[in-house]
Amino acid sequence: MSAEELKSLRSKLDEINVELLELMTKRAEIVTDIGKVKAKIGTKRFDPVRESQMLEELVQLNKGPFSDDTIRHLFKQIFKASLDLQKIDQQKELLV
Amino acid sequence: MSAEELKSLRSKLDEINVELLELMTKRAEIVTDIGKVKAKIGTKRFDPVRESQMLEELVQLNKGPFSDDTIRHLFKQIFKASLDLQKIDQQKELLV
Repeated sequence: MSAEELKSLRSKLDEINVELLELMTKRAEIVTDIGKVKAKIGTKRFDPVRESQMLEELVQLNKGPFSDDTIRHLFKQIFKASLDLQKIDQQKELLV
Repeated sequence: MSAEELKSLRSKLDEINVELLELMTKRAEIVTDIGKVKAKIGTKRFDPVRESQMLEELVQLNKGPFSDDTIRHLFKQIFKASLDLQKIDQQKELLV
């Protein structure tokens, strides 16, 4: 019985992993587009105020089980990875 | 026009952030349930083979723009945070 339960929970987890991957991919594409718009209007790529606003909004919405600090940590990693993509994208443009 | 574009992209980003938070929360709850089932059947909490299988499945599905290494890094952080929750949960049980 418990082995069956484990199998079913794991299959739910696999589905969520894929959904997370899809959302992170979608997010990365939007951040890349934002980078292009910012380059066009000449705004700085990294906006620490906007980043901390996004983090605070997420912490406000967090009902657990993750602690607020864990939410901050996980999203900072996602934000950083997306920002690094903008960097790569701009370097490509410079090389053209 | 570009300022409008930026506003619209940012609002899409905010929606995705919230969806990510919801999915991560759902994921954390399932991992906590898995921890309980594992405690019941006396299996070890951390299963490195299962973790590396999940990572490889995600890398197989990754079509960019994130590199495979970035996907591995981001998911390892999410996996670790979820596993830490199981730890806290088991400590609580020990204290009861």
